[in-house]
Amino acid sequence: MHDLLLRNVRPMAGEACDILIRNGKISGFGTFDAEPGMPVEDGKGAIAVPGLIDAHTHLDKTTWGMPWHVNNRAAILRERIDFERENRVQIGIDPHRQSMRHAIGLAANGGTHIRSHVDIDPTHGLKLVEGIWETREKLNGIIDIEVVAFPQSGVMVMPGTVELLDEALKQGCEVLGGIDPCGIDRDPKGQLDILFQLATKHGVPIDIHLHEAADLGAFTMELIFERIRANGMQGNVAISHAFALGMNDYLRVGRLIDEIARLDVAILTTGAPSASVPSIMRLKEAGVRVGGGCDGIRDTWGPWGQPDMLDRAKIIGMKNGLRSDIELAHVLHVVSKGGADVMGLEDYGMEIGCAADFTLLTGETLAQAVVDIAPRPLVVKGGRVTARNGKAIVEAP
Amino acid sequence: MHDLLLRNVRPMAGEACDILIRNGKISGFGTFDAEPGMPVEDGKGAIAVPGLIDAHTHLDKTTWGMPWHVNNRAAILRERIDFERENRVQIGIDPHRQSMRHAIGLAANGGTHIRSHVDIDPTHGLKLVEGIWETREKLNGIIDIEVVAFPQSGVMVMPGTVELLDEALKQGCEVLGGIDPCGIDRDPKGQLDILFQLATKHGVPIDIHLHEAADLGAFTMELIFERIRANGMQGNVAISHAFALGMNDYLRVGRLIDEIARLDVAILTTGAPSASVPSIMRLKEAGVRVGGGCDGIRDTWGPWGQPDMLDRAKIIGMKNGLRSDIELAHVLHVVSKGGADVMGLEDYGMEIGCAADFTLLTGETLAQAVVDIAPRPLVVKGGRVTARNGKAIVEAP
Repeated sequence: MHDLLLRNVRPMAGEACDILIRNGKISGFGTFDAEPGMPVEDGKGAIAVPGLIDAHTHLDKTTWGMPWHVNNRAAILRERIDFERENRVQIGIDPHRQSMRHAIGLAANGGTHIRSHVDIDPTHGLKLVEGIWETREKLNGIIDIEVVAFPQSGVMVMPGTVELLDEALKQGCEVLGGIDPCGIDRDPKGQLDILFQLATKHGVPIDIHLHEAADLGAFTMELIFERIRANGMQGNVAISHAFALGMNDYLRVGRLIDEIARLDVAILTTGAPSASVPSIMRLKEAGVRVGGGCDGIRDTWGPWGQPDMLDRAKIIGMKNGLRSDIELAHVLHVVSKGGADVMGLEDYGMEIGCAADFTLLTGETLAQAVVDIAPRPLVVKGGRVTARNGKAIVEAP
Repeated sequence: MHDLLLRNVRPMAGEACDILIRNGKISGFGTFDAEPGMPVEDGKGAIAVPGLIDAHTHLDKTTWGMPWHVNNRAAILRERIDFERENRVQIGIDPHRQSMRHAIGLAANGGTHIRSHVDIDPTHGLKLVEGIWETREKLNGIIDIEVVAFPQSGVMVMPGTVELLDEALKQGCEVLGGIDPCGIDRDPKGQLDILFQLATKHGVPIDIHLHEAADLGAFTMELIFERIRANGMQGNVAISHAFALGMNDYLRVGRLIDEIARLDVAILTTGAPSASVPSIMRLKEAGVRVGGGCDGIRDTWGPWGQPDMLDRAKIIGMKNGLRSDIELAHVLHVVSKGGADVMGLEDYGMEIGCAADFTLLTGETLAQAVVDIAPRPLVVKGGRVTARNGKAIVEAP
């Protein structure tokens, strides 16, 4: 692990100081003399915040760095899923190469941790997951990658998937995914019973994609709540997207959020611009853990997104109608500490004893850093410089 | 006026060719020999599109280029308006200096035309408009600026405003503005009767801010329609924002859009991320003229926005849930030709005889240019190079 003396930075946009790092951990804030042999970096008064966290993405899907993928298909969600599954190999979306490009992009832009859903289906078995594991190993020390075994094509409608999920968890996927038990799987009881059974068997948390809106999504949430209680999985379930919480019914959403807080369910949002999304401020006021993610970027589903959690912070902030400096500091929290809270990362933060994982941001205030998608002159992971000025120390393939 | 031979560009992302410009107008597409004394530029295969148009902005409000404006005020629309009016001078928002920064930013990013609302109220009289006129004169040949006499603080609730609007139109404002006749002015009949009377008197079009949502906004639209018919102002009224068209009532919105098409009302959208906005594709299918604007950027209302219509195209595209290449080409149309259609610009477009106002975009396709917020290596206005690589030929103050 690495030592480093980082001079003249402003932790969380506060007073300027030095940060002393020993053995990859923050050992002090103040004014320090350089010790012989200790690397020294000049922060030049930049803001220092904990490493950015993409807590909801899809490393296996992107066409980032490939030729522009022309897409003039009119498609519903189910058709997008099927098109991707049956055409991704032919299009050339190699999971290892593409996840390298995606993850290195995130690292270059200040990211230090990723939770990635990775597709598991009978067409590909565990091949896509294996590609991401190869990336994880190569990027060890640059950016941490947690893998969610994700039944993108459905569980009940795609025979063979349950066995593959079971095998993926046995082989080391840290989280079990799920997807629209009604909308995609047409059998909410079936999918949810199996998910909770598998999660309990392997002792892993659940993170379920829930695009289902309004009443349908609320119904599915209630089914999830019942199973959290029955299986004692309080604190171990995350709901991604949770569009139902964006429905136009203040009281009903309030009751759902109360239950989410009570069962310590985490919410992951991408601030989807054209959907009805949960209010991050309302969730935070209720004490709910809220993280953010860039979701799929430039894939066969659509062209949007880029590997940059500050760009995503801007999207989340604008979508949530946030304007004040205080609110925008909350948005920065969502794409950093919020993700750590959802993923249960220990030793994360700008505190003595925490891992020395952080990014510098050029700007006056945290709010300005979000609005400007501030330049990131330096990224540090475990006390080692991993990127400078938007360029990582490793080359993308 | 200027001559120019622009080599190797791809008009509208089509086949590469040269563009020959004589006397500030496009005189041919093809392969041409350079003539003695004629400036030559190498487009290096970039896409060429007509100059970008910000058809809804506020040049007099921005803090762009000033220190970060900390804003932790909780405020409703009315309070934002009053705070700005009473504090803008003290904060240092000089209308001429700030509009120079804003307009030069737009020009640097490929803009060739602006429609700017400029506040008119009893506190400032016509001073803000005069600041923008000074900017317009200084930027003659760089970017065209059309001024809307805009009663930001209301008409009926702000005695003295009617006389000021009358004077502003007399002195040369090209368009008459209006704002939320119900929400802000509390007297829809009062405001709208006066607006149509003034517009008819001066022979100018109307462009009215309508943030009013759902039933309230629909009601106000109906009052506007009645007065268009009564005054024969078909084709001469624009509604900005038009959030009511984003309401969740397909049939009712359809009836409003039918009437909008019938009366040839133009719609201007900013793709406001946290509001319910009109569907640009639905409007276009109905044959409605649709332009785009970046609205206020980094002002006392809020920190978002920047002087770049391609950044705005991305926001509009994401908000509208558009993904396909064909749809994204429509988005590019909204921030270019669409704005020209709303403003009634003649000789605008990539056609022989049109003004040689265009921007180059680095990228493969129009869709990619929107998604990537493509670099703009060269901007040309009237045959003269006005910006290179995001930098205008004039310095901002």
